[in-house]
Amino acid sequence: MENLLSIIALGGLEEIGMNMTVMEYGDDMIIIDAGLMFPKEDMLGIDFVIPDFSYVLENRDKLRGIILTHGHEDHTGALPFLLKQVNVPVYGTPLTLGLVREKLKEHKLDTVELISKMPREKVELGVFTIEFIRVTHSIVDGVGFGIKTPVGYLVHTGDFKLDPTPVDGQLMDFHKFTEYGELGTLLLLSDSTNAEKGGYTFSEKEVRRAFEEIFAEAKGRIIIATFASNIHRIQQAIDVAVMFNRKVILSGRSMVSNAQIALDLGYLRIPENTWLKLEDLKNLDDKDVVIITTGSQGEPMSVLSRIAIGEHKNIKIKEGDVVILSAKVIPGNENSIGSIINHLFRRGADVIYEKVSEIHVSGHASKEELKLMLNLVRPKYFMPVHGEHRHKVYHARLAEKTGIPKSNIFLLDNGSVLEVSEESVAQNGKVTSGRIYVDGKGVGDVEDMVLRDRRRLAHDGIVIVILAIEKLTGSIVSGPDIISRGFIFEDASQEVINDVKELVYTTLKGLDSEMIADKSLVQAKIRSVLKKYLRNTMERMPMIMPIIYEV
Amino acid sequence: MENLLSIIALGGLEEIGMNMTVMEYGDDMIIIDAGLMFPKEDMLGIDFVIPDFSYVLENRDKLRGIILTHGHEDHTGALPFLLKQVNVPVYGTPLTLGLVREKLKEHKLDTVELISKMPREKVELGVFTIEFIRVTHSIVDGVGFGIKTPVGYLVHTGDFKLDPTPVDGQLMDFHKFTEYGELGTLLLLSDSTNAEKGGYTFSEKEVRRAFEEIFAEAKGRIIIATFASNIHRIQQAIDVAVMFNRKVILSGRSMVSNAQIALDLGYLRIPENTWLKLEDLKNLDDKDVVIITTGSQGEPMSVLSRIAIGEHKNIKIKEGDVVILSAKVIPGNENSIGSIINHLFRRGADVIYEKVSEIHVSGHASKEELKLMLNLVRPKYFMPVHGEHRHKVYHARLAEKTGIPKSNIFLLDNGSVLEVSEESVAQNGKVTSGRIYVDGKGVGDVEDMVLRDRRRLAHDGIVIVILAIEKLTGSIVSGPDIISRGFIFEDASQEVINDVKELVYTTLKGLDSEMIADKSLVQAKIRSVLKKYLRNTMERMPMIMPIIYEV
Repeated sequence: MENLLSIIALGGLEEIGMNMTVMEYGDDMIIIDAGLMFPKEDMLGIDFVIPDFSYVLENRDKLRGIILTHGHEDHTGALPFLLKQVNVPVYGTPLTLGLVREKLKEHKLDTVELISKMPREKVELGVFTIEFIRVTHSIVDGVGFGIKTPVGYLVHTGDFKLDPTPVDGQLMDFHKFTEYGELGTLLLLSDSTNAEKGGYTFSEKEVRRAFEEIFAEAKGRIIIATFASNIHRIQQAIDVAVMFNRKVILSGRSMVSNAQIALDLGYLRIPENTWLKLEDLKNLDDKDVVIITTGSQGEPMSVLSRIAIGEHKNIKIKEGDVVILSAKVIPGNENSIGSIINHLFRRGADVIYEKVSEIHVSGHASKEELKLMLNLVRPKYFMPVHGEHRHKVYHARLAEKTGIPKSNIFLLDNGSVLEVSEESVAQNGKVTSGRIYVDGKGVGDVEDMVLRDRRRLAHDGIVIVILAIEKLTGSIVSGPDIISRGFIFEDASQEVINDVKELVYTTLKGLDSEMIADKSLVQAKIRSVLKKYLRNTMERMPMIMPIIYEV
Repeated sequence: MENLLSIIALGGLEEIGMNMTVMEYGDDMIIIDAGLMFPKEDMLGIDFVIPDFSYVLENRDKLRGIILTHGHEDHTGALPFLLKQVNVPVYGTPLTLGLVREKLKEHKLDTVELISKMPREKVELGVFTIEFIRVTHSIVDGVGFGIKTPVGYLVHTGDFKLDPTPVDGQLMDFHKFTEYGELGTLLLLSDSTNAEKGGYTFSEKEVRRAFEEIFAEAKGRIIIATFASNIHRIQQAIDVAVMFNRKVILSGRSMVSNAQIALDLGYLRIPENTWLKLEDLKNLDDKDVVIITTGSQGEPMSVLSRIAIGEHKNIKIKEGDVVILSAKVIPGNENSIGSIINHLFRRGADVIYEKVSEIHVSGHASKEELKLMLNLVRPKYFMPVHGEHRHKVYHARLAEKTGIPKSNIFLLDNGSVLEVSEESVAQNGKVTSGRIYVDGKGVGDVEDMVLRDRRRLAHDGIVIVILAIEKLTGSIVSGPDIISRGFIFEDASQEVINDVKELVYTTLKGLDSEMIADKSLVQAKIRSVLKKYLRNTMERMPMIMPIIYEV
């Protein structure tokens, strides 16, 4: 495979999140992003998911460096796990690295080499020359990449939208993208997140208008919940607070930490004497306060959740408070967010949320913007990235409309190898890929079988049958005793437990002593009898666990 | 409480679903609707939820009858459970009773007296005279009620929207609602489901336009998934199928059964030789087929789910198939629906869903319609129903805007008693209310404690510690043995299991024999030591269950 460039996404082609793309030519390999994915509802107890990067580890000698598009966790969250196993420099813009540095510290990875690059700067990694190109997105300091390779030019957009009026005034670098179009780009990899959405995504500045209207009306405190990484949003909240002579209090660990990083690096502008501490709250008039915090997704331990149920030490909701949930509702979180809104209303606050006001805009390009990007870069080949299959399908349709032949568009899965030569592009084979579940401190020790057990336990609980058998005679020395958890409310349903006990007893009596001597046979028998019984009488299928003690 | 009317909602004031309202005066009681609620994500393993109607049972001698607004399960699903315990007639329109009859049959409640009433007919139940008033909604044959009581007139809207062009041509009875306005209505109870939504809800007919566009383009089979109760939607799919010379196949038990009921009662019009059987599919050209089925919410056992993953016996997706998900995405179902869409795309179908096309409209009134209803009935007092707290808050704001004083608007909880006299309305006390979980055949045997256990098991699984102790000496005869489920993948993490075993062993060795003789003390000790250890080393908190066998 000497004159072939291989492009392999280890994540981000079958999900929103877990973005990670490998590029490999000869003895050189680079990685673009290494992100995590937040768990879906059926990944019970999982904290987050990272890509299986064993392919990188097998080829670690080739790895020249990791380049980052921006600081969101779906692009950087797997870095600590990767950097524990490979030692290469990481390249990114200042804010991206500021956020990553903080994360690496938590993982005691202080010695990783983080190399800051500004947009329009280049970095050479083996045969690859990567140019950083500024994009607009829902975090500051985002970039895409123009990549010179031995087979031709590649463009990777990273996450982007085309915001003509970004909050920080840092415009999308249309000129660079067109330059790569003019140079003749072989392959474009572009963000598919919003490929289902028609039209244009609104500018982040639109949120300011909504904020101004709300601030103008508000008589009491204003509490704004948003993502801690959304520096633009925080900036706008601060700007409008200053406009209305309100002081700002930031609350929540990640909110304070991210704001401090952005402030130190010059990405957040806060006039003096505006950012006060939570302790100052009691000395301020309600009409002089804006509290910016996290918890917009209804996370149970967040500041906002604790405020909503009256368990926050310093912030108690009262009549006149206005709470703004300035974030998208991530699918699966509707009910927990809804519950917080209900609680806040009950305590007397007015609550403003996506459904009833324009207090959020997306950070991802909609159909018209995606087509414009395709027009600017006018690649010969196209590979939609960052999305589930349906997002890639919609993005591919847009590409076809802009004139790229269907045969030049590649809808790949995680791990698929795209082989790129000067003349042609083709999919060829797969490398190891998959999802690694992170649960607490465990990385990969929970697999699908464990999740299946958790789902089963979640659905109908567990019934444990305990008995002691005399090994020689096969007679029951003690038991059967029944313990259940998550099955039924035993205090009120003692007769069910008694029925189960009776059934096990009868079943055992029906076995001859030779069978009873075979522990695994007895266990199987108890399992099958109880399973059938509980399904028929109760329509439930708890996990059944017979524990037999042989005396 | 002689001259007081009591109004008590036993459900529907703190949730979408579980609608049930009791009205009581002297020795007479009536019930409006008895619905179920589908479980939220944290109600693990629960099939559905019904209101605690023990207040009705305590007063069963007073109960004169149950009146139904329409046939949706959130208004009728608790009926079988209620009718097992009380024997009163049930009043409703023909289709409503048709659907209820089917449900009661399943519960072997064939002898319940079902009394059919047409819109503008009246029924006298004790001191109450109830008039049926036609409304438009996402099911045919829906009604609200005008109720004459000793203290004055009441209006209950049921679920409604103001559809000026209903599919069946049966218009909203504006004239009756205005008549009650003219008579002087004391209290209005009105549907709050869409009170957060601005403007007007589109007519069901708008969906037809989208269907026509899709049918005109489609070259292969068309598969439409929707709710089995949405007879209007099914009618429109059939009408457009006929227009494009396609045959219709209905698939899914509830779809076929509901369509048959609606057809028999004259609510569904299907030209002869249009409704074919699934077996006829193989004899039809793809371009001549429309399949109408259920599964629009991604329910794992539904026809659509089985089609999506290639496990349906008769329907295999192929290039050219068009699948339309013609239903709202119920919060919490986004990911399972998304997954079905991805599967269908992968198998070559084109998939059309709410996010990308106008193939669904709501059945509930938006803000402008709700204000119009308030204008028509112009009640002195107002009680928003059918909603979570936030929906009631928004509905109350609309009522204030139409001129009802805030002090005349009642935001009540389930079980709250609203006392109504000719002169005044006031909240006074509460009756027993709550949520009863139905899990399989069990009604109420799963309580919050069981759900807490299920959530815990779901999150981190269970670790069972088994050991045998000689009672007298306190020495360990066998064990400790460790069995876990849903905790870690044991095959790959044997060292964790060994560490746990070792820790239990050391802990027991550290106890004096007197302590070991106390079984519950040993259990508590094992629990606390393991809990701390697993939290510190793994950040996990599985359920820990020590089982000690005393020899």
